[in-house]
Amino acid sequence: MEKIRVAIVGYGNIGRFTLEAVEAAADMECAGVVRRSGNADGIPELAPYKVVSDIRELGKVDVAVLAVPSRKVEETAVKYLGLGISTVDSFDIHTSIRALRSHLDEVAKASGAVSVISAGWDPGSDSVVRALMQGLAPKGVSYTNFGPGRSMGHSVAVKAIAGVKDALSVTIPIGTGLHRRMVYVELEPGADEAAVAAAIKADPYFVHDETHVKVVPSVDALNDMGHGVNLVRKGVSGATHNQLLEFNMKINNPALTGQVLVMAARAAVRQRPGCYTMIEIPVIDYLEGERETLIEQLV
Amino acid sequence: MEKIRVAIVGYGNIGRFTLEAVEAAADMECAGVVRRSGNADGIPELAPYKVVSDIRELGKVDVAVLAVPSRKVEETAVKYLGLGISTVDSFDIHTSIRALRSHLDEVAKASGAVSVISAGWDPGSDSVVRALMQGLAPKGVSYTNFGPGRSMGHSVAVKAIAGVKDALSVTIPIGTGLHRRMVYVELEPGADEAAVAAAIKADPYFVHDETHVKVVPSVDALNDMGHGVNLVRKGVSGATHNQLLEFNMKINNPALTGQVLVMAARAAVRQRPGCYTMIEIPVIDYLEGERETLIEQLV
Repeated sequence: MEKIRVAIVGYGNIGRFTLEAVEAAADMECAGVVRRSGNADGIPELAPYKVVSDIRELGKVDVAVLAVPSRKVEETAVKYLGLGISTVDSFDIHTSIRALRSHLDEVAKASGAVSVISAGWDPGSDSVVRALMQGLAPKGVSYTNFGPGRSMGHSVAVKAIAGVKDALSVTIPIGTGLHRRMVYVELEPGADEAAVAAAIKADPYFVHDETHVKVVPSVDALNDMGHGVNLVRKGVSGATHNQLLEFNMKINNPALTGQVLVMAARAAVRQRPGCYTMIEIPVIDYLEGERETLIEQLV
Repeated sequence: MEKIRVAIVGYGNIGRFTLEAVEAAADMECAGVVRRSGNADGIPELAPYKVVSDIRELGKVDVAVLAVPSRKVEETAVKYLGLGISTVDSFDIHTSIRALRSHLDEVAKASGAVSVISAGWDPGSDSVVRALMQGLAPKGVSYTNFGPGRSMGHSVAVKAIAGVKDALSVTIPIGTGLHRRMVYVELEPGADEAAVAAAIKADPYFVHDETHVKVVPSVDALNDMGHGVNLVRKGVSGATHNQLLEFNMKINNPALTGQVLVMAARAAVRQRPGCYTMIEIPVIDYLEGERETLIEQLV
């Protein structure tokens, strides 16, 4: 069977873990890595691969995994879809997903390609579970409780505050979709701890949440990539109340994101042209292996 | 919008809860109920509906929900699919699903209808979660732990044993996919408790499991329809080990089965002709509501 040729666009944390997931997939091969610099910059695990600045140098590419920041996804996807290359991304700005899908759907259909968007773990695989739970108990309330784990967005917001040398914001779930923010900061020499704490608590990222600021000697010493989610729904099936549903994960965050991107890349080659979120694709299409065998093993 | 017209075939426990789920779905209406007797036999909630022995008396029917025992599913589905009516069922004999799918796929395609099989909670919605977990951590082990809850198959097996007047077998999860069987029996007058217990433990349904037999004055007093599942997977995403995934439910068993059958009925009208297991259908197709709105709310 011909392998799916996957290019990785961007080589930060997510790109690195995506490469590992491609390498672990027997039905895929890495066609190469696209970086602005156009070279591997001595990164040892890239030695076996072509590293280019223009994807057209990689020969046939079935799917480009866009391991780029969310705000770069739209323009990058448009570029590759225009070349007839399918794309997958882990775009995570919930409020803009519908608009992104609508735009990329047009572009993808025009070029006969497929785009799978928001294919991380949330949005992404969690979305599949949320949708399933909604079907199982159509009346009711769901809560998505994140953590404990590092929030990149919140950490970056803290680092932008004057007097902060380095920062880590950890998301702690306190139930019913609410979260505590534990913020660890390394201060610049002479910075005022109280002023920094006040600025953090007044920041739009933190102003609605219970936020605790702690000064530490080394933020780096606290960093780990573990994360988690607790997704719960209590609702009604038919006329029967108190149906209790729950999904939990304790995972390495970028490793799971890379794996989901690889699932989406596999699914992309199996869909008709257009743009899809993960809930619009049959779950079997994400899986490696022969269809009948998967049905026998998993149903 | 035109409502999906659903007929319910069979009116035991599952049929009754399916009717409640159809009544709760704004996009569906009950076209009627098919029973061998061809009448409602005074069942009060059937008063508003046509009850017939031949589905052709119900006018237009989009989907027939086969609320019949698993061993009756194949012949019943073939009959309705042959009439061009799509079918859904909760066929639960895991080892025969692949063969059933293959047969009904031919029949469904020949008549331009859709069959969704094994659409209960296991097999069914659990299968969707199992498949998703397999994708998230392709290397690893999954365990499906059932209960605590009544097992119909095991209870029926005990009732068939000489000296047993009534019986209830409760499935208790003891982890790693293993189960304890708590068997409650009412004895016939003069029956020998030790002989009955020995016969139960030697039965193929029980011989491989830890089984405890208790004589009780009333089995009926112990009966409840609650059930549950704990589905766990520990595995590897890419090259990263120890990814921990878990899905839990505590639910009314026939109510959830009825709800899943209704999800499948909705999805049936949205698929191309053929036979599908639940992992072969996009999760969004199971849900009531406008597609773009669902994406906005759930992704």
